[in-house]
Amino acid sequence: MSDSSVEGTTMSSSLKDPDDDDDFYAGSEDLICKVALPFSDPKFQLYHEIISLGEQIKTLKAEKPMHFKKRIKEEVTKLLQLKQQLGDDGSKKFILKTPKGTRDFNPQKMAIREQVFNLIIASFKRHGAETIDTPVFELKETLTGKYGEDSKLIYDLADQGGELLSLRYDLTVPFARYLAMNKIKNIKRYHIAKVYRRDNPAMTRGRYREFYQCDFDIAGQYDLMIPDAECIKIVAEILDSLELGEFVVKVNHRKILDGLFACCGVPEEKFKTICSAVDKLDKTFWADVKAEMVDEKGLPPEVADMIGVYVQMSGGPELIEALLKDEKLGANKRAAEGLEEMKLLLRYCDLYGILDKVSFDMSLARGLDYYTGVIYEAVLKGHTNEPTSGGEPTGVGSVAGGGRYDNLVGMFDSKGRNVPCVGVSIGVERLFSILEARAQAAKGKTRTTETEVFVASAQKNMVEERMKICKALWDANIKTEQPYKKNQKLLNQLQYCEETGIPLVIVIGETEIQKNVVKIRTVATREEREVSRDDMVEELRTEIRRLGVSGGAAGS
Amino acid sequence: MSDSSVEGTTMSSSLKDPDDDDDFYAGSEDLICKVALPFSDPKFQLYHEIISLGEQIKTLKAEKPMHFKKRIKEEVTKLLQLKQQLGDDGSKKFILKTPKGTRDFNPQKMAIREQVFNLIIASFKRHGAETIDTPVFELKETLTGKYGEDSKLIYDLADQGGELLSLRYDLTVPFARYLAMNKIKNIKRYHIAKVYRRDNPAMTRGRYREFYQCDFDIAGQYDLMIPDAECIKIVAEILDSLELGEFVVKVNHRKILDGLFACCGVPEEKFKTICSAVDKLDKTFWADVKAEMVDEKGLPPEVADMIGVYVQMSGGPELIEALLKDEKLGANKRAAEGLEEMKLLLRYCDLYGILDKVSFDMSLARGLDYYTGVIYEAVLKGHTNEPTSGGEPTGVGSVAGGGRYDNLVGMFDSKGRNVPCVGVSIGVERLFSILEARAQAAKGKTRTTETEVFVASAQKNMVEERMKICKALWDANIKTEQPYKKNQKLLNQLQYCEETGIPLVIVIGETEIQKNVVKIRTVATREEREVSRDDMVEELRTEIRRLGVSGGAAGS
Repeated sequence: MSDSSVEGTTMSSSLKDPDDDDDFYAGSEDLICKVALPFSDPKFQLYHEIISLGEQIKTLKAEKPMHFKKRIKEEVTKLLQLKQQLGDDGSKKFILKTPKGTRDFNPQKMAIREQVFNLIIASFKRHGAETIDTPVFELKETLTGKYGEDSKLIYDLADQGGELLSLRYDLTVPFARYLAMNKIKNIKRYHIAKVYRRDNPAMTRGRYREFYQCDFDIAGQYDLMIPDAECIKIVAEILDSLELGEFVVKVNHRKILDGLFACCGVPEEKFKTICSAVDKLDKTFWADVKAEMVDEKGLPPEVADMIGVYVQMSGGPELIEALLKDEKLGANKRAAEGLEEMKLLLRYCDLYGILDKVSFDMSLARGLDYYTGVIYEAVLKGHTNEPTSGGEPTGVGSVAGGGRYDNLVGMFDSKGRNVPCVGVSIGVERLFSILEARAQAAKGKTRTTETEVFVASAQKNMVEERMKICKALWDANIKTEQPYKKNQKLLNQLQYCEETGIPLVIVIGETEIQKNVVKIRTVATREEREVSRDDMVEELRTEIRRLGVSGGAAGS
Repeated sequence: MSDSSVEGTTMSSSLKDPDDDDDFYAGSEDLICKVALPFSDPKFQLYHEIISLGEQIKTLKAEKPMHFKKRIKEEVTKLLQLKQQLGDDGSKKFILKTPKGTRDFNPQKMAIREQVFNLIIASFKRHGAETIDTPVFELKETLTGKYGEDSKLIYDLADQGGELLSLRYDLTVPFARYLAMNKIKNIKRYHIAKVYRRDNPAMTRGRYREFYQCDFDIAGQYDLMIPDAECIKIVAEILDSLELGEFVVKVNHRKILDGLFACCGVPEEKFKTICSAVDKLDKTFWADVKAEMVDEKGLPPEVADMIGVYVQMSGGPELIEALLKDEKLGANKRAAEGLEEMKLLLRYCDLYGILDKVSFDMSLARGLDYYTGVIYEAVLKGHTNEPTSGGEPTGVGSVAGGGRYDNLVGMFDSKGRNVPCVGVSIGVERLFSILEARAQAAKGKTRTTETEVFVASAQKNMVEERMKICKALWDANIKTEQPYKKNQKLLNQLQYCEETGIPLVIVIGETEIQKNVVKIRTVATREEREVSRDDMVEELRTEIRRLGVSGGAAGS
């Protein structure tokens, strides 16, 4: 079943919170939607009932088996009744939540993000990339005319006097602005930062209004397909290193699409709109795409059918050879150029050892007004966007995409001078979702700290002695914690270590202090041994090495 | 001399760009303020003259010796005349720049940032901290009533339907909101992110409208001064690791200040305003502070004098002992409590080996409506805020600050339940400025990539062979680049390595390919030796280890 059926129920309700649509009870990702009302307010209890019901519904939805469907509907009905009781003024109370479409990241989520970013950045650096950063907002004019219809999704800042500003919508336009402004003719850079879109968030499918983009681009006047192939190599390295299973990088070329449309008889002014119809082929069936082309976009059915024959083709070098000999496509100059470039790209992919992961896919279209050459999109197998039996896309499939955009920088240059660019954007939010789900399924705890040693005391009044030990360990660059309470039961201290995954404990008591020793306890085995205070640091270092305590926050 | 004198000249001019104030020629940090006008536009040349003059002025200002003052004034006059010629409509043209008070970070700056962040994060992790993230904007209501007068500096988003939002002003209020919303009773977290203030930017003094904050906080009901002392230990570790020279962490306590004001006879309703006067003591002379207290804030001169005696005191444990015996201060219950806590704090600092870096300073006040206990501020010696002979503050002095705020979380809780917190914010922007200036002064190149090996070819038509080698090296996790042009002169390839600091080059030519060998060239010594292709990876690994190629982007 689909989540959207349930969301539909409530969203279509006239009871929805005017300020906040469906988010009022769906809450932010952490199920939190609490009210800062005085307890004495008669609305207080009602609010809390509503919130708790909202949380129950969310939990039911997360479980998802079919037999919960009825129960969810019942709960939603109850919720709507309660909201009605609350009346309209309730919506004016201050609600403790994050803005719609945004969420906090707790330490567990941050630990997973850090892992993912580290692997991605390692790959970018392996290929000699630098990094830059740009402001979170740009002059409104900088973004104007770059996103077509999607411009309505741009967040504007309020006019508080001074310049008119907008939050960045992606990292590509600020990059182009940066190149033009600084007259940079070549650079290989990555940029990892948040971007903002006033989209209707489908948070269960990993779409948000604030989300990370993770871009790698090569700008410069270089030889055909050399930078383009390296971008694909990087995507392959990243997906391999994240161990996400099999994937395929679909590639296509704008010239091939243009040539195809031309030789099928699409009028040039319809290239763009037909292209956007083709782009839906990864999410829906050909019959629907054809209907859109014919009924909505006025293409003769035989033209659509001819396009249909080609765009359902995919393959490798042998397909390119065949198409070059194709009497229609091969005869079109633009298509033939594109096919020759594609041939070279696949040749380079072969040299980079990734040809088996690349598929020349004529249905790949990706917003044509932006790209001028190669386009690509990486899709995880087993997470495809293909229509499922129920006709619903499963959502998480495409995990990277990009292409060549040779004309964007010129839009910012006073003389229209271009800097050719090719790049790829890693869909990190989707990767996070997959890895979070995997971490949850594994039920192993994700460590959120890297603490190696906990300094515990077995008796009272030892805080000063613990502090001396902590100082010695910190100064020796050993990651160390101690209780922030002077006197805590030893059992509680050890429990804290087990819960948070701290592998080693220093235990001191009166005897140890008198003998100038400490006990080193290994949490996993509960073994303890005594070492002299003088040897403590060295012994711990050996132990940390032996246990292979990972620097990163790995799953246990 | 002061920058502001020059800025004053232009800011007070009626010719200033209505959209952009003084920034029009001051430009963003990178001196860039280019115009996207067609070259044929008669205004084009004028604009460019203005911009180039603006850049000259900026350069002169950066040099700063007194004898430039006259020249700067002349240039500014010329600039104003040119702007007048341009007339009013000029301001309506699209100017290629970043928003006022913001700037891009080029790879050099990013490399320094990365170094600083890595050291800071290492210290946070050494103390067992987790990290969280929150959205860049919050519900407007979340920020309402938290910043007093500074609320006017909050950036609001435009009302585009839906919730009213504002950009975060700091990381502390979002942290408190996060704790209350998730009912978290204890956490030790760091948060590094950008915050936004519509301040009048003084960019030469390192103040911006978009800037990083770097916060570490310990939340939880713990024993007196244990977390507070650890925050100071962390500040000391960070400043030590950055090798910024000597520093002092000034500490004070809200209870001591309150007690002091009470026993000097300040009426309670004036505590806050008198406190903010005291707070200026690090930037101006006592005489001025006294004048503010007496003339502006209506304090009897003898009360101000009495405060003056105390707030000019600073020292260590011995000062606390003396004040505890002081017949005025020691007799005040609140002050005595504060002094006892301060005594314990210094005792713990002693155990942590940092007492020599801590100074109990009665003039430290830091916005009192926020803090409830200990407050602190770290100041670099030799970069102090103290008035200079010219009476001008030098600006970069305070590099970290924080304190205890036990009541903030309660403002978000429906029942007002508090979570005691203590934390510190590292002034990373100031640290960046210092380290950037140092890098510039050292004239050494800051590496912006970590590339270890460049794959060069000595003859034409070897791109495929280079690609095979690159694949082998990338797969062996060796950071590798090659030219993106098929055929490039060897000299240019080697020059690129020298410029970017790549230490090793693989050189291939026809002979090498035939013999199944490669040449390994050490860039620094220009030595070359031949190794077999089979040994290439191992030989390079050995060489990389031998050269100690730093993973990070260190100065050369």
